[in-house]
Amino acid sequence: MSLRSEIAEQPATAARLLAEGAADANRLGALLSRAKHLTVAARGSSDNAATYGKYLFEGLARIVTASAAPSLVTRYGTPPRYTSGAVIGISQSGAAPDVSAVIAAARRDGALTIAITNRASSALGRAAEHVFELRCGPERAIAATKTYTTSCIALAMLAGAAAGQPLDFAELPDAMREAVESEPDGARIARKIGSARALVVLGRGYGYAAALEAALKIKELARVWAEPYSSADFAHGPRALLERGTPVLLLAARGATEREARSLAAAMRERGARVYAITDDQTLAAKVDDAVLLRRRVGELLSPIVLVVAAQHVAAHVARRHGRDPEKPAGLSKVTRTL
Amino acid sequence: MSLRSEIAEQPATAARLLAEGAADANRLGALLSRAKHLTVAARGSSDNAATYGKYLFEGLARIVTASAAPSLVTRYGTPPRYTSGAVIGISQSGAAPDVSAVIAAARRDGALTIAITNRASSALGRAAEHVFELRCGPERAIAATKTYTTSCIALAMLAGAAAGQPLDFAELPDAMREAVESEPDGARIARKIGSARALVVLGRGYGYAAALEAALKIKELARVWAEPYSSADFAHGPRALLERGTPVLLLAARGATEREARSLAAAMRERGARVYAITDDQTLAAKVDDAVLLRRRVGELLSPIVLVVAAQHVAAHVARRHGRDPEKPAGLSKVTRTL
Repeated sequence: MSLRSEIAEQPATAARLLAEGAADANRLGALLSRAKHLTVAARGSSDNAATYGKYLFEGLARIVTASAAPSLVTRYGTPPRYTSGAVIGISQSGAAPDVSAVIAAARRDGALTIAITNRASSALGRAAEHVFELRCGPERAIAATKTYTTSCIALAMLAGAAAGQPLDFAELPDAMREAVESEPDGARIARKIGSARALVVLGRGYGYAAALEAALKIKELARVWAEPYSSADFAHGPRALLERGTPVLLLAARGATEREARSLAAAMRERGARVYAITDDQTLAAKVDDAVLLRRRVGELLSPIVLVVAAQHVAAHVARRHGRDPEKPAGLSKVTRTL
Repeated sequence: MSLRSEIAEQPATAARLLAEGAADANRLGALLSRAKHLTVAARGSSDNAATYGKYLFEGLARIVTASAAPSLVTRYGTPPRYTSGAVIGISQSGAAPDVSAVIAAARRDGALTIAITNRASSALGRAAEHVFELRCGPERAIAATKTYTTSCIALAMLAGAAAGQPLDFAELPDAMREAVESEPDGARIARKIGSARALVVLGRGYGYAAALEAALKIKELARVWAEPYSSADFAHGPRALLERGTPVLLLAARGATEREARSLAAAMRERGARVYAITDDQTLAAKVDDAVLLRRRVGELLSPIVLVVAAQHVAAHVARRHGRDPEKPAGLSKVTRTL
């Protein structure tokens, strides 16, 4: 039962990183604050953490932040000039060769390079000039959970330090614990989603990053076609997919996008969609068919981390509804060695 | 029949932009070559063109290139500092308010701003310091075709000019004409895809941008769950979706990724997937269940433009197989006013 126990472990791994990583974050944040631009290289769940990091580095630290296209290094041999910028590579195992290749290219250009990894001694850890270690112990489940949330926290610590405006993490472990304890709500929503073969997962702004990871977890564990969209892009075509009865899972927190989330939920229900939410917004929860309502608030910028913990339970229970064991997802390997 | 006629018009609109836009491209390319970083703001098909542009600007002009998160401007009021960089906004109508908002924020920072649009007098055209006009006449079909391919060509012209290394476009209009004439092949593949409710669309490197747009066209026109992936990311979980019989559409050109595409196609067929390709690679075409084989070569960097033209036919015919009129896609509007 490594998946379930690693989901439950997250409040503790978060607290450990926040305590033990603070000095590293301040040191590396000061270096990052001088970068003219930032690139984040990652795959899979780590790439979803990277998207969350992009919002924080652009919105908080005000640094233009790109997502690396590793094939430009590994296939074409034509990386951009990373000079005067910084590159962060994220890989829990540190064994992703294409992420290391991007870091190596950036280091040749004299850029600041940072590895966010759970294994400082890995190839990625050795390739980068600096390592920010996730400190969350070995992750045994195939699906990333605690390494995903600690990667997000590492990025939030770095972005806050780079901005000279550290985020307030005080409530985060307790809010994550509430999300861990929301399993019965997640299981109930999974029952209502039932055996639908397809699912739309929506978020906006910071919530979009959470939607990406929630959708990936559902795909990995349940093999359901869970498509993530920014609710802004959703109007551009993908909305056409919303047949009557297609379930929608909306990840949304109080804050700058709350009114939009509420009216989107109402509009989708009018179109006949079944809408479920993972949210800290009681008003939104009352407008949808069912919700995981999280009452502890951590602020909109940290909310995606909490929403994803609750979504991990939904994904695991959707998998069970499809007769799949979330502890043993088929067709996946823990470390993916794409070059 | 505006969709079909606009698909057919693309070799001519491409030739016109290449001829009439050359001076603009050189002038703006020289300005772009001085940018320390680049951000591209766009939605929908234009955002798929932006992804293609990212590969060219990073791979050819060597400028780190980010995708804008417009909500940071329109919802949070916290854009990154665009100073010393450039921002390109892409919108065929020029009426996308969030794209204009990103351009306006960049202009306030003193960054170089360029609008790529079919309407120079639009809000986007007025917001940007410079306009690169698509010159392709009004697009009447709901689904973008000629404005997508001319946006890609505009980006390729700008990236080549910024690199001081213009691409060779000489064969492009004729290659696009061959793709227009591939409609019977596209219709045949659509018949074979049949009424599958889900489809995986794959590409790698430059071909990934083409996969994004092919998948969006299929979603928009046919309401089929067409999920695009980089074949590199595909191993990270989404591969778990490949049940026996799930059709795969692979967009791949000769070049740096050709061996990978061939072995991926073989591996997926071994797993029981039906694999279809749109390609200029005869060897790949022989390894899959069926292919649109395009014999004219334009080089790997321009190939996505040609592959997408052939994919437009596939999308329209998949729509017909589902009893939908691709000329009148339901639930879509031509101009999407997301803020």
